[in-house]
Amino acid sequence: MSEIADAPVSAGANQSVDRLKTPCALVDPRVVERNTRRMSETAHRLGVRLRPHVKTHKCLEAGRLQVRGHFGGITVSTLAEARFFAEGGFDNITWAFPLPPDQLDEVFELSAKLKAFHVLVDQAETVEALAREASRRGRTIATLLKVDCGYHRAGVDPADPASVRLAARIAGAEGLRFEGVLTHGGHSYAAKTLDEIRAVSRQERDEVVGFAQKLRAAGLEVPTVSLGSTPTLCVPAEHLDGVTEVRPGNYAFFDLFQVEIGSCALEDVAFSVLATVVAHYPAQRKLMINAGALALSKDLGADHLGGERGYGRIVSMDGAEAFPDFRLQSLSQEHGQVTVPSAESLSAFPVGSKIRIIPNHSCMTAALFETYHLVEDGRVTGEWRPTRLW
Amino acid sequence: MSEIADAPVSAGANQSVDRLKTPCALVDPRVVERNTRRMSETAHRLGVRLRPHVKTHKCLEAGRLQVRGHFGGITVSTLAEARFFAEGGFDNITWAFPLPPDQLDEVFELSAKLKAFHVLVDQAETVEALAREASRRGRTIATLLKVDCGYHRAGVDPADPASVRLAARIAGAEGLRFEGVLTHGGHSYAAKTLDEIRAVSRQERDEVVGFAQKLRAAGLEVPTVSLGSTPTLCVPAEHLDGVTEVRPGNYAFFDLFQVEIGSCALEDVAFSVLATVVAHYPAQRKLMINAGALALSKDLGADHLGGERGYGRIVSMDGAEAFPDFRLQSLSQEHGQVTVPSAESLSAFPVGSKIRIIPNHSCMTAALFETYHLVEDGRVTGEWRPTRLW
Repeated sequence: MSEIADAPVSAGANQSVDRLKTPCALVDPRVVERNTRRMSETAHRLGVRLRPHVKTHKCLEAGRLQVRGHFGGITVSTLAEARFFAEGGFDNITWAFPLPPDQLDEVFELSAKLKAFHVLVDQAETVEALAREASRRGRTIATLLKVDCGYHRAGVDPADPASVRLAARIAGAEGLRFEGVLTHGGHSYAAKTLDEIRAVSRQERDEVVGFAQKLRAAGLEVPTVSLGSTPTLCVPAEHLDGVTEVRPGNYAFFDLFQVEIGSCALEDVAFSVLATVVAHYPAQRKLMINAGALALSKDLGADHLGGERGYGRIVSMDGAEAFPDFRLQSLSQEHGQVTVPSAESLSAFPVGSKIRIIPNHSCMTAALFETYHLVEDGRVTGEWRPTRLW
Repeated sequence: MSEIADAPVSAGANQSVDRLKTPCALVDPRVVERNTRRMSETAHRLGVRLRPHVKTHKCLEAGRLQVRGHFGGITVSTLAEARFFAEGGFDNITWAFPLPPDQLDEVFELSAKLKAFHVLVDQAETVEALAREASRRGRTIATLLKVDCGYHRAGVDPADPASVRLAARIAGAEGLRFEGVLTHGGHSYAAKTLDEIRAVSRQERDEVVGFAQKLRAAGLEVPTVSLGSTPTLCVPAEHLDGVTEVRPGNYAFFDLFQVEIGSCALEDVAFSVLATVVAHYPAQRKLMINAGALALSKDLGADHLGGERGYGRIVSMDGAEAFPDFRLQSLSQEHGQVTVPSAESLSAFPVGSKIRIIPNHSCMTAALFETYHLVEDGRVTGEWRPTRLW
C-alpha cells in the first residue's frame, strides 16, 4: 500500500475547541490511535489478518491507523468508500455488501485498478450475472460467499446443501475466482452480558470455520475464512483457529452503544458532537441545544438494554465528567432537548456555553458531518474529512 | 427577489429512472408544483402572508415554487440554509431557531446583506448579548420573540408576565427592532384525528394572537404575528384573524407521516428513495435492499399512531401500486430488510430490480442526499441540489 502524507492541519488548527462553530464533530486522534493499536494487538495475538472495516469513520487517516502493522487490506460498505480509499492509496479492498447486480460496471473498474478487490454474494442469480459479465469481458472477479452465522440478516445457511452447491458454482464459473467465505456476527449487538457476546464470538467462528471445512471436504479451495464485528473482537473467543481474517470497524471510534454492551469504556469513545446551549427552560427542567436529529441521528441504539434511553450522553468538554442525570430526551431536525434533574442544575451549562455529546451510534452520527475536528486537551490540532454517499 | 434560471438539466436527464444508480433520491416536480400551489391558495384564502419553511428540501428550486404568488420571504432552520438561499437570490429570511449567542458574527453578516433577516429569541441572556453586540457595531437587528403555544419545545410562556417584559426589553433595546411574535404548533404532529389537528390549529392561532394583543395593550407595536406547521395549515382553523404570516414547510414534499396524520394523501408525496433489491431470503420471507439507515434515516415517525411500523412504505415505480403487506422492518447502515407476506410474493421484486420507498419523514431523509433526481412518468428530467450542514 502506498503511503500518503498526514492530513493537513486546518486553518483553524490550535484554536480552542470552544471557538468551533456548532454543531460539529470532534475526534480525539490519540484515542483512535489507542483503539486501533489494541485491535491490532488482538489480531496478532489471535493469529489472524486484520482487514478493518472503514464504514464508521470513512476517512483515510483513521483507515491508515487501523491497518498499521498489518497487510493493508480494508473492508468497505459502499462503492463510494471503495473509490475514496482506492484514491487514497489502499489497494486491497473487500466490499462487504451483497453485490447489487445493477452495479457491475464499477466492480470491474475497481477490480482492474486495485491489487485486490473482493465482492460478496449470496444469491444464485447474482453469481450468474457476475459470471456472465466477467466472462464477456474476459475478466476474473474475486468472489466471497456470505455465510449466515446466526445473525440472520444476510448470507447463505451453512447447514443447507444448496450453499455448498453455490460455492461450487462460484469456484467452477468462468470469470469468477472463489475467494472463500465471510460472515458477520452482528447479533453480538443484541447481547446483554460479556458472556453472551463471547457465545456469539464462538458461534461466529464455529459456523464459518465449519462451513469452510465442509467446502474443503467437497473439494473446494477456501483461501479466506473471514469474520468480525466490534463486539466479537473486543470480547473474542479463546482462539480463532481456522479463521484467516477479521473485520471489526466501529472500534476505531466506538460509541455509547459499545460502552453499554461492554465492548469498551466511556473513555475509549473517540468521537463526539459539540453543540451550543441555546436556551434554559427552568419550569420544564430542560435545556435546548443546537444539535438535533441532523447532527446526532435518531438511532436509539440498544433498546433491549432497557431503561429510559436518550439520544446520547452529555459529558464535560474534557470528558472527565459525565452528567448521568441529564437526558437527551428528544430530537427534532435542529433542536435537541435535554431534561435535567432540577432547575438549579441548569447552571452547569449557561446559555451560550458549549456541551459535548457522546452519540449512541457513531456510524450513523459521523456520516452526518463533512469534517471531524481533531481535539487534544481542548485544542483543535487538525481535521479529517470523510467520504459519503454511495 | 431576484430571479434565477431554472436548474440545469443533468447529464443523465431523460434517461429511464431504472438506470439511476441506487440508492438515490427521487422528486416528482409536478407534485411539488401542485403541493406548493395548494398551500399558496390556502394562504391567500386565509388572508395571510406565506413565508414557507425551506428546511425539508433545502433547495432553491422548491423554494422558488413555494414563494410563487407571495412576497418572497422564507423561513430557514440553519445559517447554512440562510447563506445558500441568500446566494440564490432570496432576500427576506427568518431564521426560526433560538439564536445561539456564539453565532452573532454571521447574523450581522446576513443582516447587512439581505433586505430583511429576522432572528428568533426567547432567552433574556441572548437578548442582552445581541443588543450589546448590535449597539457596539451601530447596527439594528430585527428580532422576533418565540412564543410557546402548547408544543412545549421552545418559546416563552404567553401567560407569564415576564414574557411581556422580555418583549418590552427587545422593543426598548438600542440595536434591536422588535419585529413581533412567532409560534409553531408542532404538537399537531401528535394528533390522531383531523379534529385534533384542527384543535391545535385554533390553539396555535389563539395563543399567539392573544399574546400579541397583550403586548399591544402594553404599548408595544407588533408588526408580525407568525405561526405555522404543515398539519395546522393543511387542516387549518376556520380563520386566521390577527395572524400576519404562516410558515409551513414539509408540504412541499410531504411524507408518510403526513399521510398518516391526515395532512395529505399518498399521491401528494413528492419525495421517495430508489433502491435495488439485492437478495431474496424465501425461508425468512424477506428481501434485502441497498437502502439502509444512511439512505432512509431511522426516524420511526408517529409512534403514537400504533401498529407495527416500519421505516417507510414500498410503492411501485409509478406510485400506482402500494405493497401494504411488505414491511421495511429493519435498517442497518446500508442494508434494508423488507419482510413480505409469503415466499411467493418475492416475485414482485426480482433480485436486481428497482424498488421505491416513501420515507416516514422526508426532512430527515432528504438531508441524506446531495442530489434529487427529478422524475416524471418514469423519465429523469433534471436534478435539484440541496444545501446541507450548518
